[in-house]
Parts: sequence; C-alpha cells; structure tokens
Amino acid sequence: MQNLTIGIDVGGTKIAGGIVTAKGRLLKSWVVPTKAHDGVKTSFLQVRRLIERLIAEAGGKHNLVGIGLCAPGTLDPKTGFVINAPNLPGWEHLKLAHELERIFSLPARVENDANAAGLAEVLFGAAVGHRNVFYVTVSTGIGTGIIIDRRIYHGSRGVAGEGGHVSIDYKSPYRCGCGTLGCIEALASGPAMVRRARVRLVQEYTTPSLLRTMSHGQMKLISPEMISEAARKGDAIAKSILDETGFYLGVWLGGMITLLDPSAVVMGGGVARIGKPLFSKIREAIRHYTLNPAMAAKIPILPAKLQENVGVYGAASLFLPAGETAERPL
Amino acid sequence: MQNLTIGIDVGGTKIAGGIVTAKGRLLKSWVVPTKAHDGVKTSFLQVRRLIERLIAEAGGKHNLVGIGLCAPGTLDPKTGFVINAPNLPGWEHLKLAHELERIFSLPARVENDANAAGLAEVLFGAAVGHRNVFYVTVSTGIGTGIIIDRRIYHGSRGVAGEGGHVSIDYKSPYRCGCGTLGCIEALASGPAMVRRARVRLVQEYTTPSLLRTMSHGQMKLISPEMISEAARKGDAIAKSILDETGFYLGVWLGGMITLLDPSAVVMGGGVARIGKPLFSKIREAIRHYTLNPAMAAKIPILPAKLQENVGVYGAASLFLPAGETAERPL
Repeated sequence: MQNLTIGIDVGGTKIAGGIVTAKGRLLKSWVVPTKAHDGVKTSFLQVRRLIERLIAEAGGKHNLVGIGLCAPGTLDPKTGFVINAPNLPGWEHLKLAHELERIFSLPARVENDANAAGLAEVLFGAAVGHRNVFYVTVSTGIGTGIIIDRRIYHGSRGVAGEGGHVSIDYKSPYRCGCGTLGCIEALASGPAMVRRARVRLVQEYTTPSLLRTMSHGQMKLISPEMISEAARKGDAIAKSILDETGFYLGVWLGGMITLLDPSAVVMGGGVARIGKPLFSKIREAIRHYTLNPAMAAKIPILPAKLQENVGVYGAASLFLPAGETAERPL
Repeated sequence: MQNLTIGIDVGGTKIAGGIVTAKGRLLKSWVVPTKAHDGVKTSFLQVRRLIERLIAEAGGKHNLVGIGLCAPGTLDPKTGFVINAPNLPGWEHLKLAHELERIFSLPARVENDANAAGLAEVLFGAAVGHRNVFYVTVSTGIGTGIIIDRRIYHGSRGVAGEGGHVSIDYKSPYRCGCGTLGCIEALASGPAMVRRARVRLVQEYTTPSLLRTMSHGQMKLISPEMISEAARKGDAIAKSILDETGFYLGVWLGGMITLLDPSAVVMGGGVARIGKPLFSKIREAIRHYTLNPAMAAKIPILPAKLQENVGVYGAASLFLPAGETAERPL
C-alpha cells in the first residue's frame, strides 16, 4: 500500500491523468487529446483506458487511495454527479463517481476543474501558506474557485464559485455563453479579447496594426497570444486590447476582494500567462473598484505555478487529508 | 449565573441595547438617539451608560457572559478594533472591545452590523434551518453578511462581506460614497432611489406625478417610503423607480448567487420592507443574471424577521456557542 492517488483532468481539448503521492509529488502523467465530439461513450472510454494505464503504472489497485476527476462544468462533489459540462458533449446527468467506483472498485470523487485547480495551487503551488484564496483561470472561459481555510467552498448545493459569470456591466453589448450580459467571461476571456480586437480593427481601419499583418501574413486567426506579441512590439491597438482586459479583470477582482477578503489571488490559464503588462493593469483597476484600496493593495495577485498539470494535482488533492500539504512548495 | 448576554447596536441615528438569553430570547431592550455629531466621547459615553443600565437590569455582572457590540463600518472581530465607521464621527482606530472589557470587566466582542444581523437571522429569524445564507440590508446604505455553516464569514483580515460595494456597472454615472462607480449601494439604496426619482421628475416634467404633489403638498423631501406609497397608488414614475431598484438588486443578487450558492437570501432594512412589488422584480432579474436560473429560482428570497432589534440579537449572538439556536423560531 503506497497511498497514491490518480488525478484525471478532463477538458474539451485534452484529457490529462497522473499519479500523485500523499505528499503531493506527481510521479507520472499522460495527456491525450479529447475525442469530445465523438460523444460521451468515446470520451468516457478514453478516461477509462487512461485510468487503467495509471493503475498498472501504480503497481495495482492496492497502492491507490482513490480516483479524483475534474472537468469544466457543474459537478456535484457530494453526489458525484456531472450535472453538465458544456465543452464535453453528452457529459450530463452522469453518475460519474459511482460509475468509476463500479468499474475500478476504488473510491472516486469529482470536482469542477477550477475548484480543483484552486485547491492544488493552495496546497502545492503559488499560494502555499495562504488559507483563503480566490483562484482564477482565464483562457477560453473564466473559471474561479473559492478556497476557504484550505478547502474548496462549495456553497449549499455544490455549485458555488462560478465567479466568471458575475456581471460587471449589466447593460453590456457583450452577451456571455451563459446568457447574461457583461459577465467577466464575456469581456476578458481569450475569445472575448479576440472579438474586441476584431471590432477595433474594423472601427480603426485607417490605423496601421501589426495584428493585420500577423493574421493575414501568417494566414492565422487572431489569438490572445498574437495580441500579446503585437502589444509587446508596441502595436497600439493590441496594447489597448490588453489594457482593457486588465481593466475589466481588475474591476471584477476589486468586487471579489471587497466581498471575499482573500489573503491572495492566484491567476492561471493562457491569458494570465501574458504576465506583467496584464497584471499591472489589473492591480491599477482594483484600486479604483474596491472598498479598501490600501488593504486590497496588500493582497498579492500571484501567477499560477502548476501550469498544465494543475488539474491532475487538483483532482488528486480531493483525496488528500484536510490540512495536508506538499513536502515542499513545488 | 444566568448566561445572559448584552447586545448593543450602535447606528448613526440610534443606539439599541438589550439583554438576550442563551436560547435567544430578548428580555429587555432600550433605544436612544445617537448623539453622533457630538463626537466619539459623547456617543461612547451613551453606549457606556446604556450598558450600565442593562447590567443593572440583568441583576449584576455575575449573570452575564459578555457584551457584544455591532456598528456599521469596518470592525475587526479578531482584535476588537473599530477600524472606521463612516456614520459615527470619531469612531476610528478604536480599541473598542478592549476598552469595554477594561471598563466592565466582562468579555467583549465587536462585529460589523450587517454581519451580526445576518447571523441573527440565521440563528433566530427568517433563515432558521439554513446554514449558508446571504444577508442583505437595504436602507441608507446596502450592507451584507455572508453566513457559512451558521457562522459569519470574515475572510482573511476580518473585512469580508462588503457586498454593497460590488459594482454591477463599472461605467455608471452614479458614484458610490466609497469612490467606486456603479456599486449596488450607489444604485439601489434609499438615497439612490430618491436621487433617481428626482432626476426623473425633472426629465419628465410634463408627466404628472404624485411624487410632486406629495413632496410639495406635505413640505417633505421625497423618501423611499413616499416612492413606495406613490407606486402603490399607481404613479408611473414612482413605479418605474421601484422596478429599477428591484432590477438592480436582482442583477447584483444573481451574481452573488452564482458566486456563493447560498441556500437562502434574507433581505432586511427599510427599502426591503416595500415588500412584494420589489421582491417580484428582484426574482425576475435574478433569472436573467445568474448562471443556473432553474437552480437560483429555488433559492428563497426571504424578508428579514427580526426588524428593529436585529442588531441587538446579532451583537448578543457573538457569544452564543456555535451551533446553538433559538428555542423556537421567533
């Protein structure tokens, strides 16, 4: 018996799986592209095969404490149900934990991916030493996790912590996928940045912009990375798109800080990797949109540390004894 | 020894004090108008005299467990400090709990008034039976309290739960007293309703409105109560002011529900007493501004129950053993 845990992170584009020790060390990990559009039978079979490989790699079930799985969407940690997962066609009303337990005869737990990632960052990543953390991941969507006293805050029905769908502009022209106007996800996610950049390029058709040359020349669609690169090279439109993104995130985080008073904010996801030019704008906007600017200024806004394996760590963390932590910060 | 607690609620206009049993029964209460503008020496002396009267009424200190005090503003429950209380001139950087303990040789605790009121509603009021509650009081300002597992959520530095200063419209023309644009307090508090009504009366100067006759005829300034009364009598402008207020509160609560997933929302304060016409608008708006409208629709929006003594109950609750509750819902 080695007290190992399997962590599985099922995303719309990739499925990552790994074996994590009780001290939070990642022994082995694999990533496979998700065949999401082939439906739930196929994608669930992928998860099953991956778990089988990981069990073999762990030297058998007797070395394992359980299987943790996280995915983007509404997952109920109490019942082990996947209520829905918009990027994973067919993953809805699925007794997932129960099914995994039946197949593998091992305890199984499920969790929303941002919640799991937030927990992982507190236990092993950027926020080691902090107890109350607001975790944000900005990429295709904006996911958040509220960590209170080093545990995931689930609310009364397990669906708390969906901060990406809090509106900062109720009459915004930007409608979120969820239906609401002005959700931070609709304003500051990767696709939202690209959409704003495209509008700007049309509106300011007489202003030269690297974004035009880069996307036409390379026959590529505009991406958040492209915007970031163009901004670095001094492109005015790209720079203002980045500044706006930082402003929106700061307005929103200002409210979250006023409400939740975390001791740290951790930001992960592709858009957050833009780094300093974005973070400095975020910090500036927070000051103007929070109740106690002086107190808020002392809250560190930390870049996430665990990167592509954050979901695997997070899913595995669901089996860590409460209060347990990494043998050393990673 | 009778296990009684003194609860003191210091507001900008009145100071309420009472004696509460361990089972949550209010034995005796008094209210005095706050001499706030005479400064902290005078208003603190009022508090001191009130406590002296209550100790006598309780039959002496040996019958008392402690003194709980709540006030609007930033109070740190851990250190017992009043950091600031905007409506109480001079109440800042005050070692209040320490001072009360020194004077009365009894344990003392302090708390933000909305937090205390939220706790009281969960323990003795509208939300008995609920564990995770979002409490809102809408009057001169908008105060909120986050109750998790029947305890006040304080965040990392004791200043969490200031939901009234979360913006729902970052480019709003309405600036909050705190400096931020579009805080719900700047849009939906009593004074905000009055301000919007005044603007509307000017803009729509050709539309007849009861608000004009009522305020001119009675030589009174427009008040939220007047707006509510005029709306009840069918006045179009007053009705639309109420509808807007409900809409703003619903947009904001939609976000709070998405983030916190409470099992109930409790609404107190003068504006909330407008009742049904406001609450139905709130419920309608929540549906359009929350991630899971079907789940949100199941969360009851409850009118507060404890009314004018809520602060006294709340302050006294600070000494209740965790998990203790009223002998019966009041």
